[in-house]
Amino acid sequence: MMRRESADLVLSASWIIPVEPAGSILEGHAIAIRDGTIAALGPAAEIDSGHAPKERVHLDGHALVPGFVNAHTHAAMTLFRGLADDLPLDAWLAEHIWPAEARFVDAAFVGAGTRLAVAEMLRGGTTCFNDMYFFPDVVGEVARPAGMRAVLGLIVLEVPTVWAPDRASYFARGLEVHDAFRGDDLVATALAPHAPYTVGDEAFERIRGLSESLDLPVHVHLHETEHEIEEAVRETGERPLARLDRLGLVNPRLAAVHMTHLLAEEIDKLAARGASVLHCPESNLKLASGVCPVPRLVAAGVNVALGTDGAASNNDLDMLGEMRTAALLGKLEARDATANPAERMLRMATLGGARSLGLGNRIGSLVPGKSADAAAIDLRGPDTQPVYDAVSQIVYAATRSHVREVWVAGRRVVRDGVLETLDAEEAVREAGEWRARIR
Amino acid sequence: MMRRESADLVLSASWIIPVEPAGSILEGHAIAIRDGTIAALGPAAEIDSGHAPKERVHLDGHALVPGFVNAHTHAAMTLFRGLADDLPLDAWLAEHIWPAEARFVDAAFVGAGTRLAVAEMLRGGTTCFNDMYFFPDVVGEVARPAGMRAVLGLIVLEVPTVWAPDRASYFARGLEVHDAFRGDDLVATALAPHAPYTVGDEAFERIRGLSESLDLPVHVHLHETEHEIEEAVRETGERPLARLDRLGLVNPRLAAVHMTHLLAEEIDKLAARGASVLHCPESNLKLASGVCPVPRLVAAGVNVALGTDGAASNNDLDMLGEMRTAALLGKLEARDATANPAERMLRMATLGGARSLGLGNRIGSLVPGKSADAAAIDLRGPDTQPVYDAVSQIVYAATRSHVREVWVAGRRVVRDGVLETLDAEEAVREAGEWRARIR
Repeated sequence: MMRRESADLVLSASWIIPVEPAGSILEGHAIAIRDGTIAALGPAAEIDSGHAPKERVHLDGHALVPGFVNAHTHAAMTLFRGLADDLPLDAWLAEHIWPAEARFVDAAFVGAGTRLAVAEMLRGGTTCFNDMYFFPDVVGEVARPAGMRAVLGLIVLEVPTVWAPDRASYFARGLEVHDAFRGDDLVATALAPHAPYTVGDEAFERIRGLSESLDLPVHVHLHETEHEIEEAVRETGERPLARLDRLGLVNPRLAAVHMTHLLAEEIDKLAARGASVLHCPESNLKLASGVCPVPRLVAAGVNVALGTDGAASNNDLDMLGEMRTAALLGKLEARDATANPAERMLRMATLGGARSLGLGNRIGSLVPGKSADAAAIDLRGPDTQPVYDAVSQIVYAATRSHVREVWVAGRRVVRDGVLETLDAEEAVREAGEWRARIR
Repeated sequence: MMRRESADLVLSASWIIPVEPAGSILEGHAIAIRDGTIAALGPAAEIDSGHAPKERVHLDGHALVPGFVNAHTHAAMTLFRGLADDLPLDAWLAEHIWPAEARFVDAAFVGAGTRLAVAEMLRGGTTCFNDMYFFPDVVGEVARPAGMRAVLGLIVLEVPTVWAPDRASYFARGLEVHDAFRGDDLVATALAPHAPYTVGDEAFERIRGLSESLDLPVHVHLHETEHEIEEAVRETGERPLARLDRLGLVNPRLAAVHMTHLLAEEIDKLAARGASVLHCPESNLKLASGVCPVPRLVAAGVNVALGTDGAASNNDLDMLGEMRTAALLGKLEARDATANPAERMLRMATLGGARSLGLGNRIGSLVPGKSADAAAIDLRGPDTQPVYDAVSQIVYAATRSHVREVWVAGRRVVRDGVLETLDAEEAVREAGEWRARIR
């Protein structure tokens, strides 16, 4: 008789979409999970007969996908969701967001805003987020008990804020956060210089050195608007990407957010250097920043990830909506209905994100050896029927509310649409208190 | 003592957004409904003390809006949802959609597809749809018992189909449908010539005459792609809109769908003649057709409505998603983050649609004397909190799943997210049978 492997969970669904290999949609398959890791993936009968799991779950009419990686957000800004919409980027920042931040942001704000964001993201199938905000230690302390993966941005700015009074302090506090989470299973860190227009060469040089010695991603807003590039050229004669290249930062650890204005040679350089682009289509549209040329980046071989940006400029943290917008916008940008196909958007929202954060060997696809981070999307309702192609249905028809079950490292964090690891009602109550103060 | 008016229902919500007057968000208000009509709207205390209703409903944390008007769809095409995505418009039509239609479309197909569509639309807060497809009689017979408003497109084409063998038959069958639903409270009709490239001048002239004598809207695909216009100019020397104008069709009854390519003088002409544009942003993006210049149309004074198009090119019938996409796309088109603000999108999705269909005096806003067609959107969850501006939250953060209660002409058709007037499970089962055949 065949030896049965132990397993914590055997999980099957009508469709399993592993993302690797590309284009694969598996029917009648299952995965076995042991110690938080995918131990096996195969035909359900084989997985069943080969394992003696503690628990079996079958999700009829559901599609199982890798948990989404939200590659760029400012989680705590959920507390500003809808505070100031339909405004130009400069007025939005200078007259609304920055004053509100100066007045209200502290550790408690970040805790409350991040709890609300984590509740929204986990509920919508996002299992990992790459954050950039003040008090990244607080972000980590919220994510960890909620069972959510986070990459904490060790923010660097050259202006004093409630987080740090000067450049040296930003680095010192950032490195404290890095040390505090070193070796954590769920929480990692990235260097997060805010943007070329708020960070000087000296700081960027130190960031390059730390990035190399600590093997950390460099998460930076870059080429968000035409105005940013024009100003840089006017003041320094250099485009921001060229400047980062001169400083040695355009390499596989670069995770460059937005990139809405790119020359052909810049696309080639990003590809040649192995840098990643973090695409935030809804934020770029809402602030009229421009359009990231995703089809051309992909054609050149650049790794592209997908992010929502903060809820103040989106206004949700919804990777399903973001995939759809990215697909539609790419077709417009390329004037080609075959551009940004559904399968590629799902890959961007999962494996693309993982790779951009240096986590490509641990998460982003459902393959044996990787962490069991997965989301199940219920396609049985009238608005997602009939199903000819489960990936098409997920990208073009489903909403975040169709996500019903979520696991991170094998731990079930959402069960039938309800969060198991965070008190969502308490997060909403807290957010209401902040609103009363901020309004 | 004050006399108390009778009422069937007094309905209050945390926010009532009547759409008229523009920009109004009422807190602490209620509406009284009698015989399917809004009898009164005012402060909750006044409405309460002035009415003795059979039922009172208070929706805490919900926003009450006019039911959405989906101004352009092919409802039955839900059965092709996801059948052929990420393809160019010509290949999509010629190699996938038209062959599938030729092979499968009949009255039973239209019944099943429309049931699925009506389930999806009502559930998502859409209370009226403007349809264009074969067997409009069947569409009406599905919508009526479901308690949904429909405008049946009396389709005209110059090619034989399962619906009619020739031009005369299209008109004859269409007029039969018109007569069958004449005087119906929920179901109206519109003349629906498919497009300038499929309908000749003689047919358009007859449509103009019928439109005048029967006072019917003319629902037509127009300027969907640059190719359509170029072909028309090459073959006839005339742009399609100029041709319809020569034939006397550019007037307040014209409901022109898509309009992605427009000259400045065409925008002025549409405004001067009082014609409506039915904007379908997601379909235009998905098929890479182009972008309707909505901010310029609105600035010129053109009435703009919002539609999803059919589920084969969208792939959902979701007016919440469509409002968001329209807002975001308008900002890109205008290169201006203030363009297509949230409040205007809600107006397009309700009153704009109603006016385009000649129903502006009956539906599209929550004002006394109009039909009680309304949807309640639950904003209490973590993904729509906190609420600074309920309209912004609806357009930029909510999904169709946040719609929890829907009324049409005072009849409750959705209660706590569950359809009361149509068996959604049966519609899904039927759709599954069609899928098995079509696949």
